[in-house]
Amino acid sequence: MAKDFTSREQDYSKWYNELVIKADLAENSDVRGCMVIKPYGYAIWEKMQAALDKMFKDTGHQNAYFPLLIPKSYLSKEAAHVEGFAKECAVVTHYRLKTAEDGSIVVDETAKLEEELIIRPTSETIIWNSYKKWIQSYRDLPLLINQWANVVRWEMRTRLFLRTTEFLWQEGHTAHATKAEAIEESEKMLHVYADFAENWMAMPVLKGVKTESERFAGALETYCIEALMQDGKALQAGTSHFLGQNFAKAFDVKFADKEGKLEHVWATSWGVSTRLMGALVMSHSDDNGLVLPPKLAPIQVAIIPIYKGLEQLETISKKVNEIKSALESEGLSVKYDDRDTHKPGWKFAEYEFKGVPVRIAIGPRDLENGTVEVARRDTLEKKVISMDGVTDYVAQLMIDIQENLYLRADKYRIENTFKVETYDEFKKAIEKGGFVLAHWDGTSETEEKIKQDTKATIRCILLDGEKEEGICILTGNPSQQRVVFAKAY
Amino acid sequence: MAKDFTSREQDYSKWYNELVIKADLAENSDVRGCMVIKPYGYAIWEKMQAALDKMFKDTGHQNAYFPLLIPKSYLSKEAAHVEGFAKECAVVTHYRLKTAEDGSIVVDETAKLEEELIIRPTSETIIWNSYKKWIQSYRDLPLLINQWANVVRWEMRTRLFLRTTEFLWQEGHTAHATKAEAIEESEKMLHVYADFAENWMAMPVLKGVKTESERFAGALETYCIEALMQDGKALQAGTSHFLGQNFAKAFDVKFADKEGKLEHVWATSWGVSTRLMGALVMSHSDDNGLVLPPKLAPIQVAIIPIYKGLEQLETISKKVNEIKSALESEGLSVKYDDRDTHKPGWKFAEYEFKGVPVRIAIGPRDLENGTVEVARRDTLEKKVISMDGVTDYVAQLMIDIQENLYLRADKYRIENTFKVETYDEFKKAIEKGGFVLAHWDGTSETEEKIKQDTKATIRCILLDGEKEEGICILTGNPSQQRVVFAKAY
Repeated sequence: MAKDFTSREQDYSKWYNELVIKADLAENSDVRGCMVIKPYGYAIWEKMQAALDKMFKDTGHQNAYFPLLIPKSYLSKEAAHVEGFAKECAVVTHYRLKTAEDGSIVVDETAKLEEELIIRPTSETIIWNSYKKWIQSYRDLPLLINQWANVVRWEMRTRLFLRTTEFLWQEGHTAHATKAEAIEESEKMLHVYADFAENWMAMPVLKGVKTESERFAGALETYCIEALMQDGKALQAGTSHFLGQNFAKAFDVKFADKEGKLEHVWATSWGVSTRLMGALVMSHSDDNGLVLPPKLAPIQVAIIPIYKGLEQLETISKKVNEIKSALESEGLSVKYDDRDTHKPGWKFAEYEFKGVPVRIAIGPRDLENGTVEVARRDTLEKKVISMDGVTDYVAQLMIDIQENLYLRADKYRIENTFKVETYDEFKKAIEKGGFVLAHWDGTSETEEKIKQDTKATIRCILLDGEKEEGICILTGNPSQQRVVFAKAY
Repeated sequence: MAKDFTSREQDYSKWYNELVIKADLAENSDVRGCMVIKPYGYAIWEKMQAALDKMFKDTGHQNAYFPLLIPKSYLSKEAAHVEGFAKECAVVTHYRLKTAEDGSIVVDETAKLEEELIIRPTSETIIWNSYKKWIQSYRDLPLLINQWANVVRWEMRTRLFLRTTEFLWQEGHTAHATKAEAIEESEKMLHVYADFAENWMAMPVLKGVKTESERFAGALETYCIEALMQDGKALQAGTSHFLGQNFAKAFDVKFADKEGKLEHVWATSWGVSTRLMGALVMSHSDDNGLVLPPKLAPIQVAIIPIYKGLEQLETISKKVNEIKSALESEGLSVKYDDRDTHKPGWKFAEYEFKGVPVRIAIGPRDLENGTVEVARRDTLEKKVISMDGVTDYVAQLMIDIQENLYLRADKYRIENTFKVETYDEFKKAIEKGGFVLAHWDGTSETEEKIKQDTKATIRCILLDGEKEEGICILTGNPSQQRVVFAKAY
């Protein structure tokens, strides 16, 4: 399986592309920039969805569903918003095909829409058009809604999961009576995302706010979580926006407060997408293939019999089924691969490549000795243990592997985070890769010049960053706090 | 809540529309024919999804995700398929907006697609284009995939849930080595749908096959489940198609069998949609509002305190929290509504209208007597019972209500199923409403004439229908079996 597979050292980008395809996570479709998410990849996404959905519901949110198609005029109502998205909108102009005289199928020009419809690139406008009807009084607030949906943004350069024309995501859209409440909500959801990244994906993240130039189109503040991939590039893994009253004003959404006074409501929106799949792959996987954290692995334990002849297989299978039941009763998802179409060695490589956290092998000698061989994917360590203790041992391994992946990624993050004082140091550090903490004078001009010069962008201004006076690496102007620079996906 | 609410007797169609909106299930958006599914409606859909998803997985299917956008040329590859869907296709022609000289937002004519893209009305073509890459050998079969997705069909007349331009659904797409296996799969999934309709939705259904003229565009056989709504109209609630080798041939998907011989694979597809929400509403609800089967109710038990003053509320709440915990530990979803913004009477009406299966009221006298009042939504019966027994009582009520709803609907179905022998009898029966079992000569011409004449269509030819010789109600030609006619949604 892992043969003719590019290593990270050789070409990180190629390694990623090959891994996503060969591990059956996704593939490119013939539709420009649109991917097919294959069953194994989708099973991981389903686990992500389930965990996030529970976290949203536990924080008081409800799911709903709004139309895929947005009238062009809605999109235009919030000026910054349309400016941000206009260049990547898929536009529906007709609603019928017909058979032409030559027998070919063509667009029926008589079925032209009076107003063009946009496939949602994000749903603020269509949702706020509904909220206008839903919100009258302070009693209707807060309104805490989430939507699981597909969106389309016409991207020029696409990569599986990381940047695709169509992607799957969730988008939260909330309305509040006060500014403070809306800010609290956007920060709360950022922490939910960070919690998910760290505790489910085993991926450490920085929490911060974006600079003005990197803000979501229509937001007053964009909070983000940023992760560091193994090639030293940053990846924005989730964003949460404080939208102020921009959309409430654009769609005229007011509420009567307790005194009956009408005021515009305050808004947030927040989202994570199938991009997280790319982040997951690039955080942990290695030259032997995928490495999945146990909490998100569709198969947590693969059991492989080593046998000669059907009789031996039967004896082994009897024992394996006991072990499998015991593991399943601990809530683990177990696959017993007794296919006779493939040899054990092929199966070992297969489950290793697919990132299955734990592999158990059992052969005739194990039966005699009452043992099994347990291999963990993260360290590739193998250990022969007593059959009696296998359930407890594997249950503990799940915890250990989850933790080890986090610690390993966090160690990498720490080792690849650099403080620099001069522009020369900065350029060298950026070239090397990693998060670079540097002083910046706070202007968009400086930010843009640095970006032009080095391809590095300001990933975020840390939420919990310490205040520290200094001078801007580029201009020498005063700065109150270091910001996080990196090259990014 | 239920005030100024139309009764079924007055105007069934209006009753339905009002109910869907007033019960907060869904509403029309400003985008023609597209609905907004509100949180309460979506919560029911989520329960449907969870149950169906488990049934699909238990029968060996995996989820995946394919692109929203389909190249026009793909859709054209299967002749019957494109003919069936061409008239209702939303067409994407451009991929960018721009700001015009007058400041308005317009379509950027320079960003015109070389080949138009269709928003999927169903995904056979885009999926079979992938299957071509996925299937080489008999080892790759069967391929059992399901997708949860949104689809768009440009409908001229729309109604919330029943017929909308965009709707949510699942679509299964499977590939098999033999014709027999594919037929077995399409029948198996029909039985899964019937099982779901009957055991979760408490909605009895007929299982049958469609006549040629009612078949899915591209299918050799369309299996369906048909339910009877309270106004005597039939509703097609799910379909499963045996597609033969049509799509395999259109997309050139062949597999090597064990002897290495190349053959086209055999296919099925099957789907149910948010239309089921409409079927659910129309099967059980009454003039007091929604009636939901316990298995699909987002809130299964509502508890309402009756009190004067905060002190009394506190005493009641303490007791209620015990009851709530006990019910929740039985797996029930319970809402304790202690809001002081609304009076008990308002709350009673609210939960009744929302179809919550069981309502518990508890006041100071109940505290003294150690009792609660339990009301069931299906029969509107109330009963005062001992607090100690409330958990067991309510748990049993859930089973009883689920069963009662099914039996009530089934009784209605039986009472509204008629056998007729002559065309006069037929026309009278169709006018009255219900399923009408009549002999038909098997020709599309006769079917069409009857439809023109009476608006009745052949809903299905029953799978388990008894063979019975007779003569066609219209032509007098011989018939081997009665078929099921009805007016339909």
